[in-house]
Amino acid sequence: MNKIITIAREFGSGGRELGRCLAEKLQIAYYDREILSEISQRTSFTEDYIQQVVERQPTAPMTLGLSRGLVSQNAPALPQNQAIYQEQASIIREMAERSDCVLVGRCADYILREKKPLRLFVCAEMASRIARCRLVEDEYAKLSDKELKAKILTVDRHRARYYEFYTGQTWGDRLNYDLTVNTTNTSIPEIAGLIAKLFD
Amino acid sequence: MNKIITIAREFGSGGRELGRCLAEKLQIAYYDREILSEISQRTSFTEDYIQQVVERQPTAPMTLGLSRGLVSQNAPALPQNQAIYQEQASIIREMAERSDCVLVGRCADYILREKKPLRLFVCAEMASRIARCRLVEDEYAKLSDKELKAKILTVDRHRARYYEFYTGQTWGDRLNYDLTVNTTNTSIPEIAGLIAKLFD
Repeated sequence: MNKIITIAREFGSGGRELGRCLAEKLQIAYYDREILSEISQRTSFTEDYIQQVVERQPTAPMTLGLSRGLVSQNAPALPQNQAIYQEQASIIREMAERSDCVLVGRCADYILREKKPLRLFVCAEMASRIARCRLVEDEYAKLSDKELKAKILTVDRHRARYYEFYTGQTWGDRLNYDLTVNTTNTSIPEIAGLIAKLFD
Repeated sequence: MNKIITIAREFGSGGRELGRCLAEKLQIAYYDREILSEISQRTSFTEDYIQQVVERQPTAPMTLGLSRGLVSQNAPALPQNQAIYQEQASIIREMAERSDCVLVGRCADYILREKKPLRLFVCAEMASRIARCRLVEDEYAKLSDKELKAKILTVDRHRARYYEFYTGQTWGDRLNYDLTVNTTNTSIPEIAGLIAKLFD
């Protein structure tokens, strides 16, 4: 079977770390922010701007000042976020054509559905997500548990809206993934090792 | 790690078959209807009556006529379904003490939480569940897809209510399980083989 793995994940659940470990263990490519750089190179938008589009409600109007320039006059009817989504989708398809890989976020499970990837959804209990956020990002050390929880829920809400807008499916719905993995109280490298065995 | 595996499952998702395959591959005990026989032997209720209690809303009053006798006078305050649940819980605990095993349904994930079992939830798309029901039960051949779907949703609703009543948790909530497995378009023995590898 091909080794195309897509990872959707709750914020703070360790989905990105799981993806990186899996790619290492299977010795295949890993794409996450790399997708942003690629879109940025192909469009007139900065990586930060693209990231914002991905993390915000897709229907909300974006501030033009954040982009590096105006949208090309060749596609005046397309809103910027639609254009970014389309570019992202073709980059993701090219990456999956090029070689086996792990792709994190960005509706990759949906975009690549014809290729039958192993579609993972990664989740964890709130306390575990709060603890993990503190571990991986120094900036979260300043936040109280309540503030961090609010941040986590906001990011999840945006991911859910983005996914639902572009796929027409419900983010996190167990039927959109092959495996939903709960990382609460577990070691991510250990889980990655177990999932890698699926490809033995 | 111990090999205690609990399986909760949507009706028609192949959860029972997955459990049986897993037990075979790992050469460990498999408990499903065996639990009913054991409860029946220890109480005054028939297996069919116990099955009905499990499959119905726990708060609904049960017809006494279906039981083999009256509830013991020693526990007059306990409604019958509470008594059955308690008996079931101690049997499940004893089974998990006795040896490694796979336990299907019956809130086993919750009852055995202290033992840290591998908690699976098995699901599948409706079309796949309808097809699987027709394959495994001749009686379903007579039903239209619409009727079969209604039956499937009814059983799921009862399982959800039963689970929620006794555990205070939401049935199918991804955080109550370690892995949620979508069996749509897959071979159950193959999935069982993959999950068995987790214990290598």
